[in-house]
Amino acid sequence: MGNTFGELFRVTTFGESHGPALGCVIDGCPAGLELTSDDIEKELKKRRPGKEYGSRDEEDTPEILSGIFEGKTLGSPIAIIVRNRNQKSGDYDYLKDIYRPSHADFSWDAKYGFRDHRGGGRSSGRETLCRVAAGAVAKKFLALHDIVIRAWTSSIAGIDLPAPGENPFNFNDINQNLFRVPSLSYVQIIKSKIEEIKKEKDSAGGVISCLVTGVKAGLGEPVFDKLDARLAAAVLSIGACKGIEFGSGFACASMKGSENNDLPCESGKFASNNSGGITGGISTGQDILFKAAFKPTPSIGKTQKAFDREGNIKEIEIKGQHDVCIVPRAVAVIEAMAALTFADFLLLSRSAKV
Amino acid sequence: MGNTFGELFRVTTFGESHGPALGCVIDGCPAGLELTSDDIEKELKKRRPGKEYGSRDEEDTPEILSGIFEGKTLGSPIAIIVRNRNQKSGDYDYLKDIYRPSHADFSWDAKYGFRDHRGGGRSSGRETLCRVAAGAVAKKFLALHDIVIRAWTSSIAGIDLPAPGENPFNFNDINQNLFRVPSLSYVQIIKSKIEEIKKEKDSAGGVISCLVTGVKAGLGEPVFDKLDARLAAAVLSIGACKGIEFGSGFACASMKGSENNDLPCESGKFASNNSGGITGGISTGQDILFKAAFKPTPSIGKTQKAFDREGNIKEIEIKGQHDVCIVPRAVAVIEAMAALTFADFLLLSRSAKV
Amino acid sequence: MGNTFGELFRVTTFGESHGPALGCVIDGCPAGLELTSDDIEKELKKRRPGKEYGSRDEEDTPEILSGIFEGKTLGSPIAIIVRNRNQKSGDYDYLKDIYRPSHADFSWDAKYGFRDHRGGGRSSGRETLCRVAAGAVAKKFLALHDIVIRAWTSSIAGIDLPAPGENPFNFNDINQNLFRVPSLSYVQIIKSKIEEIKKEKDSAGGVISCLVTGVKAGLGEPVFDKLDARLAAAVLSIGACKGIEFGSGFACASMKGSENNDLPCESGKFASNNSGGITGGISTGQDILFKAAFKPTPSIGKTQKAFDREGNIKEIEIKGQHDVCIVPRAVAVIEAMAALTFADFLLLSRSAKV
Amino acid sequence: MGNTFGELFRVTTFGESHGPALGCVIDGCPAGLELTSDDIEKELKKRRPGKEYGSRDEEDTPEILSGIFEGKTLGSPIAIIVRNRNQKSGDYDYLKDIYRPSHADFSWDAKYGFRDHRGGGRSSGRETLCRVAAGAVAKKFLALHDIVIRAWTSSIAGIDLPAPGENPFNFNDINQNLFRVPSLSYVQIIKSKIEEIKKEKDSAGGVISCLVTGVKAGLGEPVFDKLDARLAAAVLSIGACKGIEFGSGFACASMKGSENNDLPCESGKFASNNSGGITGGISTGQDILFKAAFKPTPSIGKTQKAFDREGNIKEIEIKGQHDVCIVPRAVAVIEAMAALTFADFLLLSRSAKV
Repeated sequence: MGNTFGELFRVTTFGESHGPALGCVIDGCPAGLELTSDDIEKELKKRRPGKEYGSRDEEDTPEILSGIFEGKTLGSPIAIIVRNRNQKSGDYDYLKDIYRPSHADFSWDAKYGFRDHRGGGRSSGRETLCRVAAGAVAKKFLALHDIVIRAWTSSIAGIDLPAPGENPFNFNDINQNLFRVPSLSYVQIIKSKIEEIKKEKDSAGGVISCLVTGVKAGLGEPVFDKLDARLAAAVLSIGACKGIEFGSGFACASMKGSENNDLPCESGKFASNNSGGITGGISTGQDILFKAAFKPTPSIGKTQKAFDREGNIKEIEIKGQHDVCIVPRAVAVIEAMAALTFADFLLLSRSAKV
Repeated sequence: MGNTFGELFRVTTFGESHGPALGCVIDGCPAGLELTSDDIEKELKKRRPGKEYGSRDEEDTPEILSGIFEGKTLGSPIAIIVRNRNQKSGDYDYLKDIYRPSHADFSWDAKYGFRDHRGGGRSSGRETLCRVAAGAVAKKFLALHDIVIRAWTSSIAGIDLPAPGENPFNFNDINQNLFRVPSLSYVQIIKSKIEEIKKEKDSAGGVISCLVTGVKAGLGEPVFDKLDARLAAAVLSIGACKGIEFGSGFACASMKGSENNDLPCESGKFASNNSGGITGGISTGQDILFKAAFKPTPSIGKTQKAFDREGNIKEIEIKGQHDVCIVPRAVAVIEAMAALTFADFLLLSRSAKV
Repeated sequence: MGNTFGELFRVTTFGESHGPALGCVIDGCPAGLELTSDDIEKELKKRRPGKEYGSRDEEDTPEILSGIFEGKTLGSPIAIIVRNRNQKSGDYDYLKDIYRPSHADFSWDAKYGFRDHRGGGRSSGRETLCRVAAGAVAKKFLALHDIVIRAWTSSIAGIDLPAPGENPFNFNDINQNLFRVPSLSYVQIIKSKIEEIKKEKDSAGGVISCLVTGVKAGLGEPVFDKLDARLAAAVLSIGACKGIEFGSGFACASMKGSENNDLPCESGKFASNNSGGITGGISTGQDILFKAAFKPTPSIGKTQKAFDREGNIKEIEIKGQHDVCIVPRAVAVIEAMAALTFADFLLLSRSAKV
Repeated sequence: MGNTFGELFRVTTFGESHGPALGCVIDGCPAGLELTSDDIEKELKKRRPGKEYGSRDEEDTPEILSGIFEGKTLGSPIAIIVRNRNQKSGDYDYLKDIYRPSHADFSWDAKYGFRDHRGGGRSSGRETLCRVAAGAVAKKFLALHDIVIRAWTSSIAGIDLPAPGENPFNFNDINQNLFRVPSLSYVQIIKSKIEEIKKEKDSAGGVISCLVTGVKAGLGEPVFDKLDARLAAAVLSIGACKGIEFGSGFACASMKGSENNDLPCESGKFASNNSGGITGGISTGQDILFKAAFKPTPSIGKTQKAFDREGNIKEIEIKGQHDVCIVPRAVAVIEAMAALTFADFLLLSRSAKV
């Protein structure tokens, strides 16, 4: 339990932040898919932190250990590992007996009675690189079925970005800036804001939007494994995520049915997409749209109060490698988790009819 | 896939809105728990619609078929069925060849190539009664471990209710009004609003809050089966739910780390609970708090455009039994899904240490 | 855990021997399969005991509660229940505090600290009727894909029956005699032997063979979910089963590779089938063949020593309803378990290729 | 599906015979277990072939990539890899277009439409080293709970060895001879027999027995996940295994109940153990005993007929690295699979009572 995701397209990840390596095993990727380590490295790069904001910047080189023969998947498990190279474990000695506020330190220690305090161990954000590696494989499989997943930063440090259809919104901008925003004209103002927060030894949160196109009607499994239920689990399993909404989301709670219902306008088209492409847990054929909220990085340089192992209140100043805002890096992780979810449902959908 | 929830405390539900019966099988409920059908009926009553708002009002009488001996659970599967008695299937004939807007009609037909059009069949909200029946069993198990789950309507038809700690908020009020709001003084104004919407042949949405107390630190499974991830899946698997947030939720996206972090104030206590009682996917020992958004009932009496099976646009006026707002009934369902989730994690937590 | 079988074609069973009802829920049966309760009743009849040998003879009438609409499966869970009608629970009072030898009484009590002593409760052979009901559905699905499953008694009370290809062996004979042997000419001698054992207040065991035809090459999942591994689990989950072998089975242990290997003889054909139609856990396209050993019914009328709840040795004479030999009834159960296994693998095989 | 074993103590393996590496990920091993790579290497050595019989003899050096901190398990996934070093892939070129008789070559190709022909790829016996590595971890966990697993060759190349209680049978002998037989006095005769078969360019099969001591009453999960059912799946998932039997096994089929039932003889003891320590799928507290049949290695040097990819019959002489008899190496694999199964059931048993 816990480290495996999916039913048929199934991923198991492993690795601590400061252990020898992290990795994943993908079991259930169908045979015959073209795949190279370049496909994986390309996605891992999207997740790399900007050097400019001080976080641990590692060249993550994936090695594929199994499952590929002559450039194609065999149908057997695909194991991928990435060695840890840049860890400075000594930096974390002062954390051995104190719990960083709003981190997993205390809760994990309570669960296991024991923990690797170096960089958060297994609870580190570094764990997400395995999701991105596995997601890269899922994306290639989905591409064969015309499904495309695109996420972006839609709000960061309190600054909201334009939405699709609004101006300036450009999908091509997303991977051309470190913040993964869809509007290059906003980059400078965000940069200033982030630098200001950095100087305050503080951190910022944000919202990520994700749009999935090319999903045919009929994907998803009722009753408990609805497409939105499983996407929610996928996305909320990402460390700092605190909420998710589909289509009109929380706003629909104060709308009327006549406002929120998606009505046909012309042949095969709807006038709105408040459902976010999902009704009754099954895809409708419209675009899938969801948003996820990310809390500000709990690691901040400011002096804070914290509990130690004996329950005493101490003062702590968090050193080590950490991002002012993890949202831009989480964009790649959201895409990966969505890709894994859709790959799984695509295979599951093959069992719907006799 | 789809109709089973949980790993160790595992529930499978079945039944269509207009079939002979609905029911559930609970596999994995530990032996030795005292249980009677009254325990189940009591919870089912909370889910019953108010007669006043016109929806199908059925006395749902549960029958326990297995798993109980001399008033205690045997450790074997507990099967519970509820017969359908009040269905008027003929009322739905006009839906055979048309898809109700923002309902599951079209997406399920696309998936299976075939559907039971009577009252939504398996996609009907009536399915949730099985969740409530199973949740009743989970609640009894949780009670032995001092875990208490309470949900309420925190916003309905655009009217926001007081939050815990605010005035007037009273847990005892919740089950004393049809809207399941925690403040009896709001009932009259809500009643008027709902009746107004009913007259317009329209519908309303809302938000449900849920508070879980008594959860010790250490519950939840990293990495993919985090407590919040699994709660999100549990809650978003409920028909009309479109979003969920934990603790400070979407608001935290524009907060700074120094504002959002939960810091200790005195021995064993924190000054805030923006984490909603969960960090790194594991419970912290603080109260668990989440909110879920529900869309307005898609079934409205107003004339709407809709696609028929051939893709033509037709006009539709939805008749049959439906609620103006399903939020008050979903309160019991939220509690049930939370109970099932916590029961499962409680059992899973027994494997954390050697 | 424990009461669910299968990954995609998934069956959950419930019910105690002397509780209100037994039943099953089949989740994952594809939509569009024609199904009536007659299909199920027909299979249940094969499992009914012969009245002549004194065991509890109940007319098991299945009721389908869900999952069928207009004579076809909906893709939603199919729930089937059978009411217990003929139980005489008082007959079992003397078993409250004593453990029948080689029965599940003691081990289940050790596990749960509590048990339903009436007729074995959940551990009763009566539980297998749910497998047969679910297997009936699986068989109909398999028939669409030309897979046919046939089992028979190949040894009973020490008397070995002819094998396929030997004389007299006739598939049509199997359902024309109470012993489910494939050679009507053996019926009289078996009858005498069984009556002799009955007079001795003793019981008999036997072997069941199963032949599955029409399975295309490529079914099964490596490495841990090999076709033979999963069939073994399916068959050994039947109460009194103590062994299974595939193809040449235990005999191959003393053969040489040159004797045991299956070599081609003519286009598309092999000269032998020592592999039993499975290599490397995957079907080869040859017939699948396995045999299962069943122990003599542990319930015997003879006076035996037994432990009571305090660990004292007492004398016991087992009364109540029990078969001299359960092998003939287990034939239907073997077919059902094989059918469930193949239905599951058939769906799983749809994910092998991109 | 396929490459993961277990519910709570869960192992996923990966790797092809001639790929870069093989490995496993153990998810669910409780925190706080002392573990080093020596523990794993020690078990891997038991699986190493004897150089004397010509099979690929590789020093398999395990590397632990995660899950261990300061010599103890963290509760997070334990990933272990072993690099392939000794492969001679060119040796297998002649197998590209022909299917070795009674090997997985054809069936896997039929399933995936594509295969790695070098040394059997994923279907190679080399895959079992991952089971042994994972089993080493399970054994350490079981040792904390006093469960000890011992397997041995009880029949090889038609030569039967003494059973426990018979003379000469000595547990200490098992790891002191290459054949893993429990009687050193048999070694010379077996050696002669095996060398004779080797000269004939043929191969041999055998039987492995396994005895598990220290299992308390109450382990196992009814109905479908009985202890024997799951052990059967575990053991039959090993490549060349063709049968399994528990306790009196196939012999019980011709016994009477009065002969086969295990009766008490003195306080807490039984006069026999025909049940093999399991009744109704749950452990009784007696020793667990089972036997598994292994077919002769299908790879033989003798000229054989074989199908090629086009379905033509060709002649084949199998070269490459292969064992005359794989039984001695499978002894370690049987122990590993039993250990994984018991570790899982031990964790599952923690959920039996409230």
